[in-house]
Amino acid sequence: MRKIRIGLLGLGVVGAELANIINSNIENISEKYGVQMEIGKVFVRDLQKKRNTDIPSSKLTTNADEVLNESDIICECMGGAGTEITKEYIMRCIKSKKPVIMSSKKVIALYGKDILDLCMSQKSQIRFDATVGGGIPIAKVIKECFKGEKITKAVGILNATSNYIYSSMDKKGYSFEQALKKAQDLGYAENDPTEDIDGLDALYKVVVLTLFAMKSWVNIKELSTKSFSSIDILDMKYANELGYRIKPLAIFEKKNNKFIYRVGPCLIDEKHIAANVINNFNIIVFEGSNSGKLGFYGQGAGSMPTATAMFDDLVSVLKTNFEYETDLYEGCEIVTDYRDFRNNLYWRISVENTIGKLAHICNVFAQNSINIEKVIQKDAINGKMDVVLLTNSVDATVIDLITKEFETNQIEINTIIPFFND
Amino acid sequence: MRKIRIGLLGLGVVGAELANIINSNIENISEKYGVQMEIGKVFVRDLQKKRNTDIPSSKLTTNADEVLNESDIICECMGGAGTEITKEYIMRCIKSKKPVIMSSKKVIALYGKDILDLCMSQKSQIRFDATVGGGIPIAKVIKECFKGEKITKAVGILNATSNYIYSSMDKKGYSFEQALKKAQDLGYAENDPTEDIDGLDALYKVVVLTLFAMKSWVNIKELSTKSFSSIDILDMKYANELGYRIKPLAIFEKKNNKFIYRVGPCLIDEKHIAANVINNFNIIVFEGSNSGKLGFYGQGAGSMPTATAMFDDLVSVLKTNFEYETDLYEGCEIVTDYRDFRNNLYWRISVENTIGKLAHICNVFAQNSINIEKVIQKDAINGKMDVVLLTNSVDATVIDLITKEFETNQIEINTIIPFFND
Repeated sequence: MRKIRIGLLGLGVVGAELANIINSNIENISEKYGVQMEIGKVFVRDLQKKRNTDIPSSKLTTNADEVLNESDIICECMGGAGTEITKEYIMRCIKSKKPVIMSSKKVIALYGKDILDLCMSQKSQIRFDATVGGGIPIAKVIKECFKGEKITKAVGILNATSNYIYSSMDKKGYSFEQALKKAQDLGYAENDPTEDIDGLDALYKVVVLTLFAMKSWVNIKELSTKSFSSIDILDMKYANELGYRIKPLAIFEKKNNKFIYRVGPCLIDEKHIAANVINNFNIIVFEGSNSGKLGFYGQGAGSMPTATAMFDDLVSVLKTNFEYETDLYEGCEIVTDYRDFRNNLYWRISVENTIGKLAHICNVFAQNSINIEKVIQKDAINGKMDVVLLTNSVDATVIDLITKEFETNQIEINTIIPFFND
Repeated sequence: MRKIRIGLLGLGVVGAELANIINSNIENISEKYGVQMEIGKVFVRDLQKKRNTDIPSSKLTTNADEVLNESDIICECMGGAGTEITKEYIMRCIKSKKPVIMSSKKVIALYGKDILDLCMSQKSQIRFDATVGGGIPIAKVIKECFKGEKITKAVGILNATSNYIYSSMDKKGYSFEQALKKAQDLGYAENDPTEDIDGLDALYKVVVLTLFAMKSWVNIKELSTKSFSSIDILDMKYANELGYRIKPLAIFEKKNNKFIYRVGPCLIDEKHIAANVINNFNIIVFEGSNSGKLGFYGQGAGSMPTATAMFDDLVSVLKTNFEYETDLYEGCEIVTDYRDFRNNLYWRISVENTIGKLAHICNVFAQNSINIEKVIQKDAINGKMDVVLLTNSVDATVIDLITKEFETNQIEINTIIPFFND
């Protein structure tokens, strides 16, 4: 029987789970596919560390080249090992035409084009279903649910940490900082929560999901996010009063070959399904040309679903007898801003509580041809008051103009948040 | 190359779609699996009818036996042809050990045990992924998302018609009858909507999903539903005031080898994800022992997804080289009532607006050891007023006692609806 040596890059929680799954499926796989799997060399950084799997120490190595040279398939479970070094190893695997199974979302999001281009030119196989999805194996589910169909739109809550924070702000009246602290205490947020809070984690997921759902590569360097931390508890309160929720949304759409997106806080109708996904739950609603809207809801899960998805990818490599795909993605898309959605805006403006201020604000908007759909003047506290306005969409240049005009009159724009229009 | 003749029982919209998919995949399948698919005999009731596919008339027959005798695999697309005759044909296919692919949910729900038992004893293959799911291929998604894991609980909105009706009652203030009429005008409800409205359609889905998700067979004859039509617009209004929605829910749970379920109207927290699934959308949230809650949301879709799912089943038969499964379900479960969930109840009681009536109601509840958690006395109209009460769970026998006691005092219980407690 043909032997297949499976090399592992990394033996952290995911790597150890994967090793256990592989070992417990050797017989099953040999019966089904007529090959004898075997764990080959395993790259680790620390040979002494205690691990949750019983790989003989003779297989461990601190030299990644050994894994590369002595494996038929390579599984990348590098975790937080550093994206550049991970990319470097993966590129070397592809050059030697060995199928690679990846788990690092960030590496695909940052270097996906280089990696996929090399795979296509080398006619080598890559699989990365495990890089997104948490509890829901989203790559597989997309394939099953939208067979031969184009996905045109997606809206989701892709970052559990920020959703947890927003939920506790909304429910318990915490400030963003208090809610973050609580999330850290409970293990829902990391000690350095920057990537979650600034929307980068959600943005990585957008890039990978765009590959799965729209077969398009978007260059993350051309994308930006609006930090989820830019929201005050007052904004939540006012949004709720208006029949909306503020949620940490990721929205992306392919329209006339343009990629339109937003990752950041958005107002969303309180009756929208995504408005009611709370705590550490995620949701993504895709829209297909035939199937209409299909949504998937679940918890961002840990190492086990990731390892399971990697093992599925491994089985796929065996099933397809190491065949590569040649159309990993279609040409890069032009990236345009979410403003192109022409969505309404929510403004929270802070002014001295003196006669004529509100009239002045309204005048400035009118002069700039901005239609005010709703205005709420809140109670004054310490001589200052909040004015909340809902307007039609406004160009960034006009916002700059208004901001300057207001500054000279001691009027402060605290927050501008777009609405998500389904 | 080995020839595989695929016989069709029925050539309505689903059958015609399936025939087209089969014909356009002949080459693809022969490349992948080394077999030559061919549409064999096709059972129809009317040889002259115009159809949306170009099957030569020589293949059509009004004699189902010809399909049975001259096919290697049989696809059942009988639609509304009658469940008994469909079951009869399927049993004959199984007896001749030919793999059967089914699309009729109701036939599985009514006769699943007979069909599966015969398959197991005959060592014959049956597949029925196409029988539930609409836009979401739920059987496949369950397999992908809950690998080797037990699903313990499910809550869903499984009937698009009744959800559409409830949504327009809630949004537009229609009565149930008005909303039903609108749904019929728009094609969301059939001319005879009985199965949708009485919850039978949802119950059939519960039985089939229980097979997929819990690998358990429940006997539909031991199950009952509470009609979705038992709700008045007033109940919706009062529920909304209390922070709840009334939704046409299907709930089922396997707990200590007991099957607990409810199909009928329920009050559900307005912040629950299922409370916010409106119009003709469906949702199902499963709870697994490892994955926690995973939800799937989409539209009940038409013939195309069903035909696609049938074709997938067909490919599975080819892939597994006609191998049968021997553990189609585990032993039958004891069926107990949703009351066993010990859920709170909503009561709407109608009384003459005279002194002492409310006190009397409260006394009767107290005498029967029922705890009233909330009571709202609504304005009187024409001397009558509604009293809305929320209580703890109450046994059916006690409800009967109270009903009789109230009747002698001209107090009428209009509605009793359980709460869904997540």
